[in-house]
Amino acid sequence: MGIRAYLDWNATAPLRGEARDAMAAAMDVVGNPSSVHAEGRAARRLIEDAREHVAALVGASPRNIIVTSGGTEANVLALTPGLHQGESGACERLLMSTIEHPSVRSGGRFLVSAQEDIPVTGVGVVDTDRLTHRLAELGGSRPLVSLMLANNETGVIQPVAAVAEAVHAHGGLVHVDAVQAAGKIACDINSLGADLLTISAHKLGGPKGVGALILANEALHIPDPVLKGGGQESGRRAGTENVLGIVGFGASAQAAHDALADSAARMTAARDRLEARVREIAPEAVIFGANAPRLPNTTLLAMPGIRAETALIALDLEGVAVSSGSACSSGKVARSHVLAAMGVPPELALGAIRVSIGPITTDDEIEMFLKAWTKRVMGLSRAKRGLAA
Amino acid sequence: MGIRAYLDWNATAPLRGEARDAMAAAMDVVGNPSSVHAEGRAARRLIEDAREHVAALVGASPRNIIVTSGGTEANVLALTPGLHQGESGACERLLMSTIEHPSVRSGGRFLVSAQEDIPVTGVGVVDTDRLTHRLAELGGSRPLVSLMLANNETGVIQPVAAVAEAVHAHGGLVHVDAVQAAGKIACDINSLGADLLTISAHKLGGPKGVGALILANEALHIPDPVLKGGGQESGRRAGTENVLGIVGFGASAQAAHDALADSAARMTAARDRLEARVREIAPEAVIFGANAPRLPNTTLLAMPGIRAETALIALDLEGVAVSSGSACSSGKVARSHVLAAMGVPPELALGAIRVSIGPITTDDEIEMFLKAWTKRVMGLSRAKRGLAA
Repeated sequence: MGIRAYLDWNATAPLRGEARDAMAAAMDVVGNPSSVHAEGRAARRLIEDAREHVAALVGASPRNIIVTSGGTEANVLALTPGLHQGESGACERLLMSTIEHPSVRSGGRFLVSAQEDIPVTGVGVVDTDRLTHRLAELGGSRPLVSLMLANNETGVIQPVAAVAEAVHAHGGLVHVDAVQAAGKIACDINSLGADLLTISAHKLGGPKGVGALILANEALHIPDPVLKGGGQESGRRAGTENVLGIVGFGASAQAAHDALADSAARMTAARDRLEARVREIAPEAVIFGANAPRLPNTTLLAMPGIRAETALIALDLEGVAVSSGSACSSGKVARSHVLAAMGVPPELALGAIRVSIGPITTDDEIEMFLKAWTKRVMGLSRAKRGLAA
Repeated sequence: MGIRAYLDWNATAPLRGEARDAMAAAMDVVGNPSSVHAEGRAARRLIEDAREHVAALVGASPRNIIVTSGGTEANVLALTPGLHQGESGACERLLMSTIEHPSVRSGGRFLVSAQEDIPVTGVGVVDTDRLTHRLAELGGSRPLVSLMLANNETGVIQPVAAVAEAVHAHGGLVHVDAVQAAGKIACDINSLGADLLTISAHKLGGPKGVGALILANEALHIPDPVLKGGGQESGRRAGTENVLGIVGFGASAQAAHDALADSAARMTAARDRLEARVREIAPEAVIFGANAPRLPNTTLLAMPGIRAETALIALDLEGVAVSSGSACSSGKVARSHVLAAMGVPPELALGAIRVSIGPITTDDEIEMFLKAWTKRVMGLSRAKRGLAA
């Protein structure tokens, strides 16, 4: 590959140097963390050190971190019927926003009849009035509410703390999918009021295939682990631990935590510059969620009349990697369920291009995008209007 | 740590150089395998190359490999009620041997009432007479039979091909947990007659936290994935792929496959030497499963009257890493369900020490074990007999 601009950090972030070094060093540690001999104890130590760094990133206690194979597994584990806190009754009903990740929307283990949707507004924020109304209707039935901290496509930040307060007032529990937010904005489990929190290593510069479900306290109990067998993760997640992945997760969590304020400032400045230039070049471009609080790194935009599929291929040929939204659906450019939930017309939604940057994104990369976008996307747009005229 | 003898390869094998190099190189590949741009396609290529190596190790088609977070997840996924092949009826009953791994014994998703045990003989081989009798009783009810290829504690190899023939004759399906066998003995899915096969990377020199469930053909259908959300692994296992782990898995599978005959010959020679010396030093030592076909690398032995817990700590202090059987139970030395199933008296079972070697285990390591064992375990044994006298 020639010079490229990688602007798809929400799909996955490049591996941080700290994670790389820690993983390379850990390759020499032979043992199985469950073994009692010196080799086993050395591997166990690596995991427990990493657990502390992950815990620090989200303000949790290390013993409440359940390490999983990623955000999807953590979400599936969280959304378990019968979930309860101490002696309180179990959650038997799941409420979730219409813009949640597919692993929340269809990954959990509640019966379809025990699930319901909470809509979002036109700017992509969960409709809190509708939610509180519904909570009141449900009375004391202890619902589990799943609300993401920031949407992966639009970057729109959700009012998690306010929602958590309302849910708790009605005796329910709150699960927060913070996969896309962690490492980009503050993500303290207690400030958020979350009872369960999902994060993923590879979105914050760790390796792919490792994540965690984090519990706010020891009284939270998930009755039915997804993976059963050995006693790993205190019986909450069986299977020999992904030692290298966990080491990388810990190192990336520590680095992300240390750099949080600085990274956010850098990304905000670059993102604002990018969006100002886009508006200059094409005043007709739509930036989704622009009027809502958003992550510092995410811009979801569309040019009316241009299909994202065509634009992505053209931009890729120019050396620019961006996406059409979520990366999970194996390459298919389908209509975004997030934009549909926001009431965006299908024709416009099919043109959505997500530009997501990182703390080390350079001005040159942003320029490469703007140049390629002007040449290819604006070119397509002009051609289209020419044809229509 | 000073000079050590790592003789606990069944708990986890050291990372092969090939896996290490491949993983280090893959750290430079940025993309999410589901992304359509060049970075995403490069990551996808790494996964698909690895899948081919894994497929070659077990004689399967790459498209029938479902990559998981390890053996446990593969076993849990395999043991799904409703599993079926093409238009055949679904498996609604699970038969499993009493010596299966905990992730099979208690990980699957069949109701307890739909599960039953098949016993093993005194040498640790599944009782095929009992199984065929039971299959006949069940008539045409299409059971799913789960039988491991080699036991992780004793190394005893199970008559999988014969069992598969009997199960198929009764319209059932066979799942084979080959986690401990793959890379040590031939493990061809078709020769074994397995319909589903589980393997794990870290037992054959790959990284921990990655494995696969392999299907014999495309007609096999698992109705309810464990992890749902994105469309990864052809919709059979959601979640961003553990790219580095998968790359290490592929490299280790390739290396293990290439070296199979040579490795087995080396390990058999070393193991036979070890066992001959043990019998010389202590004719009263018991080697479990010694009269059954076994893996070339595993010796499970006990000195009457000596507790494994005490012996392991003593051996560890002498620089020798061995185990008391399975590593999965977070450090606790509990009574082995495998030896219990074989009818071994509890007092003797509590003394079982597993020595498991690898293709690069040296004569010096074996000598270190024998010396430490003579000094510490035989010492304990003499002291005990002195007290008893």
